[in-house]
Amino acid sequence: MLIEAVVPFKPVNPKSRLSSVLSTAERELFAEAMLTDVVLSLKEAGCIPFILSTVPLHCAHAEVKVSADELNPALNRLIGSTSGPLLIIMADLPLVTPGVVRRIISTPSDIALGPGRGGGTNAIFIKDRSRFHVDYYGASFIKHQKIADQAGLSCDTVDSFRLHTDVDEREDLVELMIHGHGKAVNFLKSCGFSLLIEKGRVGISRSSEQ
Amino acid sequence: MLIEAVVPFKPVNPKSRLSSVLSTAERELFAEAMLTDVVLSLKEAGCIPFILSTVPLHCAHAEVKVSADELNPALNRLIGSTSGPLLIIMADLPLVTPGVVRRIISTPSDIALGPGRGGGTNAIFIKDRSRFHVDYYGASFIKHQKIADQAGLSCDTVDSFRLHTDVDEREDLVELMIHGHGKAVNFLKSCGFSLLIEKGRVGISRSSEQ
Repeated sequence: MLIEAVVPFKPVNPKSRLSSVLSTAERELFAEAMLTDVVLSLKEAGCIPFILSTVPLHCAHAEVKVSADELNPALNRLIGSTSGPLLIIMADLPLVTPGVVRRIISTPSDIALGPGRGGGTNAIFIKDRSRFHVDYYGASFIKHQKIADQAGLSCDTVDSFRLHTDVDEREDLVELMIHGHGKAVNFLKSCGFSLLIEKGRVGISRSSEQ
Repeated sequence: MLIEAVVPFKPVNPKSRLSSVLSTAERELFAEAMLTDVVLSLKEAGCIPFILSTVPLHCAHAEVKVSADELNPALNRLIGSTSGPLLIIMADLPLVTPGVVRRIISTPSDIALGPGRGGGTNAIFIKDRSRFHVDYYGASFIKHQKIADQAGLSCDTVDSFRLHTDVDEREDLVELMIHGHGKAVNFLKSCGFSLLIEKGRVGISRSSEQ
């Protein structure tokens, strides 16, 4: 069965914590490259992805729905609007591969959560939409576990660093440079980024910085 | 087949980057608790763990060998000393479970690497010791991939956030508080640590700090 997968996306001034290394225009292109990597992995894993964007957007690889609502009400309206399984996955996960997506959607449990670094939730697979809702921000991973528990739903944690690594800060770019495989890492390389090893620590440098 | 697993350990002044939140004595106890979590997961997964310590040490759960050498020569001497498969795994991985260990040692490849955050290598499983050596520090994950490649060995990457998350800094304690299950997280709780959510970000606080 093909599984619907929604990727929330906020195209305007994205990834502001990368503003010390990327201009606004570059951050927009970088966010779109990460989004494309996620969407292509979803398609290759047999999902039907669509993008839930805060503003109109063109994407060659997936349908785009626009909602100006905040993340939680927008997603909860979507969850309540129809039945069948749904995968929710964040757009800033350029390390995700089709294999990771298959691990999530093949869970034997009612719910599969992909934890993000710092208590977040980077992916949620919901087999039965009628008994679950989302509550993002803060320690959302713990909140989502509680929501499943209170609804009597079994809940699996997907153990994947590719799913755990959302790209928000400069040090996250190191992970992408080492473990990336798609458009986002190619974008970074085209901007002149490379790995920099100093005193045993691994960082990144940009050719114009040197 | 039971697989030999070595856990390098440096008991003196461990985890210095946690000195803002834990005293020297506490860091020693915390490092030992993390080591015990790793050793118990190895045993439950069917490995025979031993600790390669820089100074004499008592451990109730595993044999201890002492080597004052640096990490790379100490491990490479060990790799060359005998034959058969060997798992090398770091001591600061308290999120590791027996299931993660089983994923590493059941690799179909000649080598399995567990990447650590920032380019490191948190675990290496070597099926045939005669054709591999280690080169830790810096972007060791990339170095280990090259060593395998140059020896003609197939090399697998184990995709696990539990293996990826080495506990070095204050923010890593958040991961342990959320996803931990053993002695290390219990030690933190006994010290008065709890999760602290401020402005949507998840951190930790200690009762004496409040």
